Amino acid sequence: MDFKIAKERFEELLIKLRALEYASATIYWDSATGAPKKGAGERAKTLGVLSGEVHNVMTCDDMVQCLKLLDENKDKLDKITYATLNKIKREYDQMAKIPKDEFAQYSELRSLAGQVWEDAKEKSDFTLFEPYLEKIFKYQRKFVEYRGYDGNPYNVLLDDYEPGMNVDILDDFFNSLREKIVPLVKRIKESGKKIRTDFTNRSFNVEKQKEFSKYLLDILGFDFEAGMFKESVHPFTLNLNPYDVRLTSHFTKNILLSGIYGTIHECGHALYEQDIDKDLVGSSVATGVSMGIHESQSRAYENVIGRNINFCGFIYPKLKELFTDKLQDVTLKEFYEGVNEVKPSLIRIEADELTYSLHIMVRYEIEKKLINKEIEVKDLPEIWNKKMNEYLGVSPDNDADGVLQDVHWSDGLIGYFPSYALGNAYASQFVNAMKKDINFNNALKEGNFKAIKDWLTEKIHKYGSTKMPNDILKDVTGEGLNPKCFIEYLKDKYEKIYNLK
Amino acid sequence: MDFKIAKERFEELLIKLRALEYASATIYWDSATGAPKKGAGERAKTLGVLSGEVHNVMTCDDMVQCLKLLDENKDKLDKITYATLNKIKREYDQMAKIPKDEFAQYSELRSLAGQVWEDAKEKSDFTLFEPYLEKIFKYQRKFVEYRGYDGNPYNVLLDDYEPGMNVDILDDFFNSLREKIVPLVKRIKESGKKIRTDFTNRSFNVEKQKEFSKYLLDILGFDFEAGMFKESVHPFTLNLNPYDVRLTSHFTKNILLSGIYGTIHECGHALYEQDIDKDLVGSSVATGVSMGIHESQSRAYENVIGRNINFCGFIYPKLKELFTDKLQDVTLKEFYEGVNEVKPSLIRIEADELTYSLHIMVRYEIEKKLINKEIEVKDLPEIWNKKMNEYLGVSPDNDADGVLQDVHWSDGLIGYFPSYALGNAYASQFVNAMKKDINFNNALKEGNFKAIKDWLTEKIHKYGSTKMPNDILKDVTGEGLNPKCFIEYLKDKYEKIYNLK
Repeated sequence: MDFKIAKERFEELLIKLRALEYASATIYWDSATGAPKKGAGERAKTLGVLSGEVHNVMTCDDMVQCLKLLDENKDKLDKITYATLNKIKREYDQMAKIPKDEFAQYSELRSLAGQVWEDAKEKSDFTLFEPYLEKIFKYQRKFVEYRGYDGNPYNVLLDDYEPGMNVDILDDFFNSLREKIVPLVKRIKESGKKIRTDFTNRSFNVEKQKEFSKYLLDILGFDFEAGMFKESVHPFTLNLNPYDVRLTSHFTKNILLSGIYGTIHECGHALYEQDIDKDLVGSSVATGVSMGIHESQSRAYENVIGRNINFCGFIYPKLKELFTDKLQDVTLKEFYEGVNEVKPSLIRIEADELTYSLHIMVRYEIEKKLINKEIEVKDLPEIWNKKMNEYLGVSPDNDADGVLQDVHWSDGLIGYFPSYALGNAYASQFVNAMKKDINFNNALKEGNFKAIKDWLTEKIHKYGSTKMPNDILKDVTGEGLNPKCFIEYLKDKYEKIYNLK
Repeated sequence: MDFKIAKERFEELLIKLRALEYASATIYWDSATGAPKKGAGERAKTLGVLSGEVHNVMTCDDMVQCLKLLDENKDKLDKITYATLNKIKREYDQMAKIPKDEFAQYSELRSLAGQVWEDAKEKSDFTLFEPYLEKIFKYQRKFVEYRGYDGNPYNVLLDDYEPGMNVDILDDFFNSLREKIVPLVKRIKESGKKIRTDFTNRSFNVEKQKEFSKYLLDILGFDFEAGMFKESVHPFTLNLNPYDVRLTSHFTKNILLSGIYGTIHECGHALYEQDIDKDLVGSSVATGVSMGIHESQSRAYENVIGRNINFCGFIYPKLKELFTDKLQDVTLKEFYEGVNEVKPSLIRIEADELTYSLHIMVRYEIEKKLINKEIEVKDLPEIWNKKMNEYLGVSPDNDADGVLQDVHWSDGLIGYFPSYALGNAYASQFVNAMKKDINFNNALKEGNFKAIKDWLTEKIHKYGSTKMPNDILKDVTGEGLNPKCFIEYLKDKYEKIYNLK
């Protein structure tokens, strides 16, 4: 095979890969938005066959040869092919360096572990899940060895979700949070200020909630002709390509805010995908570059924009119009404070903007130590509860509300959690940079969300995966991950709300 | 490769095939039930890649060897594998005997022809579509030569949709219809009896129509846990497997009957698929055996059951309850006659039960003569209009309402139309046989639809594709296709309604 043929063959293999991934994603979407219950078994089998095919294509001899030849001729590649090569090389490394039979055994283990986790969570009994989690970490440690690493072995896993990330940067980041945010949370607790939230649990008609979410998507600039909005048990965003980006939310009658902020969060993900440069469509890099950058977009929309006083001021009249009788005794100030209440709690997905990253810190420290064999899986419940108490001042009295709360580990997603916290930090850094170019607060006040979306598109979205996370960060903000910026944003905002200054 | 390995390898290839087909079907379902407009291009490309993969698997060297080895060892095969072999051999012949480049050119032509047909229909100008249709028939004639045939070359195409069918049987069938039904339609026209249908075009709330359709699906026995019901532009049924069968209907405010009978028709298809023996799930024969048998189930439900006086009597109170103000002046007799009005019309899909098969006769005669080069594509509009006048007494004054009305030919579906008429005839034969085992009219009167569904399951549905159409027909009715039975059913019913006796 010569370079020219390798380039063509590489493209052929990628076309097949993308079709298989498109198919799996559509089946997943279908499954999460109403596919019949009894079809679950055959659906799972089909997804298994398709992912086996992905594995076959990714590790076939032609792929190995193509990757080698293209890598040797990097300088001859156009920008898109170069970025694609780097992306596929990473994915290849994640699969191909692991012996095929172990990879298959591990896939099977994950599938089993998912079921056991569900059961263990329902029964709130970690000991049921423990042997499976033990094995998952054992495999991951082994895989890390196969794959090789620089410095800390946990770096390999961090890098899977946030290319370029490592424990040195993250230790520094979380140390700063520990030092500055943990005390802030305590001061808020001790301030005695009571924020009114009673109104958020009144009975809000679900159809009207949905209507309000559609209104939000509309004003924020979601393109309904290049996407869909539906309901599912957990909100998520799914991108087939920039012309077809779907998102869901979930509505509960007496939990007003979860539907609203679930929608805004997913909208951040969806805008990222919809606004990728259309020249990239039909390539493998027409998608967001990393979990961290993705989460920065959803968090920027959910928190920095969505929980800003000016944004609240813009949307509150419409909300009040829809729910006149439910909200007539609630002022804008009360609404704003209500959506920003700080309340250290046990469950990550229900956490407020301030304490959220502390939940992630608990998981980060545990994952890092487990991969480095400094702690053991069997001791997790104790360690978990201790850390929760230390950072958040609350501690679960059962495993379901503690170490068993998240699905991630059962699915082998180790190194994934930190990207949530990175997203929060990146978001504050991006908005800081944005403020130098546009009048952010004025844009929110006037509902000029196009200005914000256009800025994000130009600086971040349009690149898809052609630019690495850290390059985006540096080009946009002039620096790398900067915990100070995030901490200042939080201090500034919450000291005001809780009258701590 | 020895027999044992061939059997295993065959199963592996089929697993891949089924996953690819499952994926394409899900993407199609998604596309027809709300997928975003702008994603159409990438969606079409993905479907193209997946169908290319199907072609690769179907025609790969391993498949050729497996088919050969299994065929040589037929006697060693279990029932399911034997039926599967026969099914895949048929599909292989349809693809593999045609040179690959011609197959690809033909696929491209079909895709183009579809767009041209749409345009031509909109402009009502056959000359735009003519060169494409000319080529499609040219390819099909050529393919028939490659594939080889017994007797009439059109037999090959008939056999694609209804295994075992040929022009001798169909000539006889349509001759009988021409002789008996054409005069019956004339007598009805001359009878002067006016049937009341004004009420069917009143304004019926679409949500309530949907509710009524759900009621119908429920009483007829559709399993909502093994299927879904949605809306789409044209009603259709899609089966992923017996545990996941989806159907759609279409509702228009002032066309009451189209939503109702669209739903009942698709329900017939859906029950067939849902009631296939669960032991066949996970094989390639867990699906209806042919277009004709499938259509017999949908037509049995739509017409023989759905337009029966006792069925109307059972559902009419519920319909009246939903639309009290719209139907209070309409008696059951008027409703029954309204759903059975005979009105020769230009458009097949709007045709009544009696004239429907005459529409098919027009297409059958044209296809047969085109494939046999007895007529030319350019003369189709004239031929079409002449035949319509002869059989139905109506004739279109434009191509859109005439020769351009159906999408089928643009998609290369030649030999497909006859299965619609076969379905009508089979339906009458099956119900005749059913009447010997159960009190059909009583079951309808009492709403005991389970008795009917169970009978169909036991006699037809459960077999999936493990029994050939003609074997089903013979085992159930004791004979092959019998136009007399169909004609008697129609005469008996419509002579009563139009007081011709």
